[in-house]
Amino acid sequence: MSRVLRVAAAQLGPIARAEPRAQVVDRLLVLLRDAAAAGAHLVVYPELALTSFFPRWYMDDTAELDWFYETEMPGPETKRLFDEARQLGVGLHLGYAELTPDGHRYNTSILVERDGSVVATYRKVHLPGHEEYEPWRPFQHLERRYFEPGDRFATHRAFGGVVGLATCNDRRWPETYRVLGMQGAEVVLIGYNTPIHYPPDPSHDSLVGFHSHLVMQAGAYQNGMFVVGVAHGGNEEGVVSLADSCIIAPSGRVIALTAHTDDEIAVADLNLDLCANYKETLFDFERYRRPDAYGAITDRKGAIPPP
Amino acid sequence: MSRVLRVAAAQLGPIARAEPRAQVVDRLLVLLRDAAAAGAHLVVYPELALTSFFPRWYMDDTAELDWFYETEMPGPETKRLFDEARQLGVGLHLGYAELTPDGHRYNTSILVERDGSVVATYRKVHLPGHEEYEPWRPFQHLERRYFEPGDRFATHRAFGGVVGLATCNDRRWPETYRVLGMQGAEVVLIGYNTPIHYPPDPSHDSLVGFHSHLVMQAGAYQNGMFVVGVAHGGNEEGVVSLADSCIIAPSGRVIALTAHTDDEIAVADLNLDLCANYKETLFDFERYRRPDAYGAITDRKGAIPPP
Repeated sequence: MSRVLRVAAAQLGPIARAEPRAQVVDRLLVLLRDAAAAGAHLVVYPELALTSFFPRWYMDDTAELDWFYETEMPGPETKRLFDEARQLGVGLHLGYAELTPDGHRYNTSILVERDGSVVATYRKVHLPGHEEYEPWRPFQHLERRYFEPGDRFATHRAFGGVVGLATCNDRRWPETYRVLGMQGAEVVLIGYNTPIHYPPDPSHDSLVGFHSHLVMQAGAYQNGMFVVGVAHGGNEEGVVSLADSCIIAPSGRVIALTAHTDDEIAVADLNLDLCANYKETLFDFERYRRPDAYGAITDRKGAIPPP
Repeated sequence: MSRVLRVAAAQLGPIARAEPRAQVVDRLLVLLRDAAAAGAHLVVYPELALTSFFPRWYMDDTAELDWFYETEMPGPETKRLFDEARQLGVGLHLGYAELTPDGHRYNTSILVERDGSVVATYRKVHLPGHEEYEPWRPFQHLERRYFEPGDRFATHRAFGGVVGLATCNDRRWPETYRVLGMQGAEVVLIGYNTPIHYPPDPSHDSLVGFHSHLVMQAGAYQNGMFVVGVAHGGNEEGVVSLADSCIIAPSGRVIALTAHTDDEIAVADLNLDLCANYKETLFDFERYRRPDAYGAITDRKGAIPPP
C-alpha cells in the first residue's frame, strides 16, 4: 500500500463580512477541483473557512453572532462541497464555527476521508485573545468570548497514516505537536487566521511570518512528522492577515508554499515513510525521552521562578 | 539595576586528542580576555570544553578513559581560568566530563558568577548515541556508555536574571526549554558538540546547521527567553563538527553568530526585559496554557499510536 499522500493546502483570501455562505462554498469548490486536478488525496481548508474572521468584531446581539456558526456539518450550504469531494475521491479538512444543539460554541475542524466518511472533529484547545471588549484595540480578537475551549488532542488512522488536527494558535505551543507526536502523528493539519498586527505588542508584527513557520518547522522536526499549515489570509475588512500557507516535511523543511495572499492551492507529496528518518533515530522517543524530568510541563499552568 | 547582560559565546575549534589541558586552558584564557575586553559579564564555553570530544572513541581501558574526566572543578589545571575570570569580574559557563569520588560519570557544566561564586552545576539529561561499540560507524558516539544521565533541569537567579542550563542534545527536545520556561528562565546556556555526519541517517547531514538553529530559535520564542548556543566545532581528529555558535533573542531571531569554525567569541547585549514581550502577551502561560490537555507528555516515554 502506498504511503505517499498527496495533499493540497487550500489557502483562502479575504471573505467579506456580508459574503454569503453559498459564495464561499463556490470558492471552496474551485479549490477542491484544482486539488482533484492536481491528483490530491486530501484538500486542507483553513480555520473558520466559511465566513469572515468574526472574532475581530464585538457583537452582543446573539442573532447577529449566530449567523457565523454552523449547527450541522455538513449543513444545507456545505453539503454540495462534501458531496463533490466524495465523488472526486478527495478527502477534506474544513474549519468552521460550531454551535451545538445545547448552545455550546467551539472553533472546530472536521476531517473527512476520500469515501466521505467522517474521520474526526477537533475543537481548538488553545484559544488566544480576550474575553471582553477592549476599546484600545484597532480590532478585537474575541475568540475567548465566542468559543469554549476543546479538551484534547487526538490522532486518527486515515489516509494510510496517522493524522492529527490542531488549529491556529495551537501551532505556537510545542505541547500541541508533542501530545500529537506521543500519539504517533505522521501528519498534522493546521488551519489559521493570523493578523499581521498584534495589538498587545507590535514588536511581533514584522516577525509574524517567521514565527508561523518557525513553530511549525520545529514541531515537524522534533516529532518526525509532516505539518500542513493553511491560512485564511489577505486584507479582510481592513485587517491584513498572514498567508504563507505551507507544507513542511519531517526534516523541518518547507516543501510547498503558496505564492499569493488569495485563494490558492499548494500541493506536495507526503511520503509518510520519511517520518521514520527521525522517529526511529535521533527522536526515538522510547529510547531517548526523559519524562521523569518533564514534570513541570504538567504540574503547573504558569511559570514558577526560583525564589 | 541594569537588566542588560552582555554575553560572549566562546566557541572552541578542534582540540587534538593528545592536547594537554594546560594548552586548552591557555586557549580558554585567550577567549576570556577577549570577552572581558568586549565588556562581557559572562563568557559561555561549550560542552566538554577541556578535551577532544572523546565519545567518538571506544575505550575499554579505564585509565585511558579517566584521562578525559575532571575529579574536581576547578582543578589544578582549571584554577587559573577561574581565578582570572574572578579578577576580571567575568562570570563563566564551562562544560566538562565529571568523575565523582564514588565513581559516577556525568556530562556536566558549571555556572560561576562574576565574583567567583558557584551558581550551579548541571548534568546532561538527554544523552544521545549508544552504549556499545558499533563497528559499522565511521566514528562512535558513546555518550550513553561514558556518562550517566542527570536527573533534572533547574533555573537559578544569577547575572540579574533567571538562568537555566542545558547541554547539546538537550536542545533538540522542546521539553528542555519548556521545563526551564516553567521555572521562569530568561536565559538558557547550551554548549554542544555536533558532528555534521549522523551515521544512523545521513539524510540529516546537510541540515545539521539548520536543525541546530531551528530548535534553539523555537525554544527561545516559545518561552520568551534568550538562548546562547556555543559550539566545540571544526575538524577534530578527522570528524567535522558544527560551529555556528549563536545568541538568540526571545523573538527567536539570531542576534549574534560566529563567523569561523575555530576559537572565536560572538557577543551580544541581552536585554532581559525583552522576555516580557512574549512571556506577558502571547505566551502568558498562566492565562493560555492547557496542562489538562498535555498528559501524554509525561504519562508515557514512547509514542502510543491509535489502534
